[in-house]
Amino acid sequence: MPLTTISLDAPYLLYLGDAPDVDHAKTGYGIAYWRADRCAAQMRLPACPVDLGLPEMSVADAVEAGIRTAIVAVAPLGGQIPDHWLPQLIELAAAGIDVAAGMHSRLNDMPGLVAAAAQGGAQLIDVRVPPDDLPVGQGRPRTGKRVLMVGTDCAVGKKYSALALHRELERRNIKATFRATGQTGIMIAGEGIPIDAVVADFISGAAETLSPDNDDDHWDVIEGQGSLLNPSYSGVSLGLLHGSQPDAIVLCHDIERTEVHDVHGDYPIPPLDEVIDGVLRLARTTRARCFCAGVSINTSKLDDFTRDGYLGKLQNELGLPCVDPIATGMTPIANFLLKNA
Amino acid sequence: MPLTTISLDAPYLLYLGDAPDVDHAKTGYGIAYWRADRCAAQMRLPACPVDLGLPEMSVADAVEAGIRTAIVAVAPLGGQIPDHWLPQLIELAAAGIDVAAGMHSRLNDMPGLVAAAAQGGAQLIDVRVPPDDLPVGQGRPRTGKRVLMVGTDCAVGKKYSALALHRELERRNIKATFRATGQTGIMIAGEGIPIDAVVADFISGAAETLSPDNDDDHWDVIEGQGSLLNPSYSGVSLGLLHGSQPDAIVLCHDIERTEVHDVHGDYPIPPLDEVIDGVLRLARTTRARCFCAGVSINTSKLDDFTRDGYLGKLQNELGLPCVDPIATGMTPIANFLLKNA
Repeated sequence: MPLTTISLDAPYLLYLGDAPDVDHAKTGYGIAYWRADRCAAQMRLPACPVDLGLPEMSVADAVEAGIRTAIVAVAPLGGQIPDHWLPQLIELAAAGIDVAAGMHSRLNDMPGLVAAAAQGGAQLIDVRVPPDDLPVGQGRPRTGKRVLMVGTDCAVGKKYSALALHRELERRNIKATFRATGQTGIMIAGEGIPIDAVVADFISGAAETLSPDNDDDHWDVIEGQGSLLNPSYSGVSLGLLHGSQPDAIVLCHDIERTEVHDVHGDYPIPPLDEVIDGVLRLARTTRARCFCAGVSINTSKLDDFTRDGYLGKLQNELGLPCVDPIATGMTPIANFLLKNA
Repeated sequence: MPLTTISLDAPYLLYLGDAPDVDHAKTGYGIAYWRADRCAAQMRLPACPVDLGLPEMSVADAVEAGIRTAIVAVAPLGGQIPDHWLPQLIELAAAGIDVAAGMHSRLNDMPGLVAAAAQGGAQLIDVRVPPDDLPVGQGRPRTGKRVLMVGTDCAVGKKYSALALHRELERRNIKATFRATGQTGIMIAGEGIPIDAVVADFISGAAETLSPDNDDDHWDVIEGQGSLLNPSYSGVSLGLLHGSQPDAIVLCHDIERTEVHDVHGDYPIPPLDEVIDGVLRLARTTRARCFCAGVSINTSKLDDFTRDGYLGKLQNELGLPCVDPIATGMTPIANFLLKNA
């Protein structure tokens, strides 16, 4: 089954430039944490204080070590790759090592880098640029099982929850694939489709392409995008929901989030039971038996005692497992998912 | 208020090439019917049997008559402009007349046409190509009133219903603007945004741009796109719904349509009261008081007696005006809209 998705070859060298602090290098920490087996090296400019704890390599070392892809693993500083990072990236590309980045400024628009990649036989992979041959969604039911993260808003832990649930399923030797829908997720997974960057008519087609037919006992764990409650990105979220045809959803939330962020207007987040009900109504257009497998909540601002009380009360109210994916883990959600699917 | 939308200057010459029949020239008939005041001429190849009843003009005549835009007013034949149409289009562009089309093959990708337009100082306007500076949706409430067409599926009469409602409001001297969201609508309106062609992250931003702040007593009558029930295009529909922030919706339907077309799977159209309820739930995220102003149904397959019975029964069940926009007209929906807004 041909997947028209972006794809990165391991092993990786994580490129940090002179990222000033841990916050700017979150992408690098994410890749190193979730895909330690794919990360063989890091490369930094002399002034860089961030250290992912990976072996430091020169370009010659990287070639010798068989590095396949150098990933610019730093959050966009204004979405641009600084000019003073280019000499190292050019040297990598000229040596035949693919370069991948998720910046607004595209690698493929940088003439020096393009020339070096042509010379070295390397690919320049802009993970924010979707494949250009995506189909329109067909709505055809697919084999295999799928669970999709949905959020009460953007940036409430959908990617983390998906990766943690995927890891929990793998720990149990259940066949499972993490399906990435955003740039950082794609860098972690090594493949995926930046669903918010496709042309509107092809959102659900992209989602269908991302999680194709599979074995009956295989789970796709699909990273969400946006939120049905966020008026800026709800279209992306609904296209992803309908195209994913999920057997189950996991609702992701942040306890601090009482209203949708980064919008101008009155957008309170409704009670979570109403949110779940609304998502399931929509999900059932393409998957009649879709159910909610649990709620994954960032409660990092609570102490342990308060967290346990909050999650316990919510769990009783909803009749669903309620977890903090870091503090308490995804085991209860995995149990509920596997028992009910 | 700058509108980053596509814009066509009148008067128009409608270009028909050698369109083989009325069906292929539906776009031309639509423009000539809804915007007779903007249409001054037609141009055809000798073999063309279609006649819109407009004055036939040569390029010299068109220049003399002050024609501003030549619109390729024929449905895509495989989405391509045939090579043998090009000499006339090149002659028009070289004479300084803008050329507009909604084909998959872009005017701006045709070297001969591009050279002629540069020479003549004409624009080549691909109405399927959205502006490239659209913002992300903000969710800010806007002044003025809006009514959005929503459909039980694609191709159930949303554009026709919007144009007919707009005409009915104008007839009553109510300030109103038809807002086009698709290629044919844009050609009729002379401006608009092809909402299904924007990048997914910008759907609601495009919808916000399309219907900006306005006078308190001004109505935007917004053409819909896709359907929340159609798994291929539901993301487009939700982004348009949230970005439009409609005071009211009009549900458009075709009595022959019992399930969603052009998909592979089981997608029955639910009872219309359930459809309306589902749309309003979603609409109220950005417009708390959104209501349904009526149902506009294509009943062309029914005889008059059967139609009256069907619409009367449905109107009693829903407690909303139910019309056929051609057979019975939009007057009851306009009445209900203005009384309740």
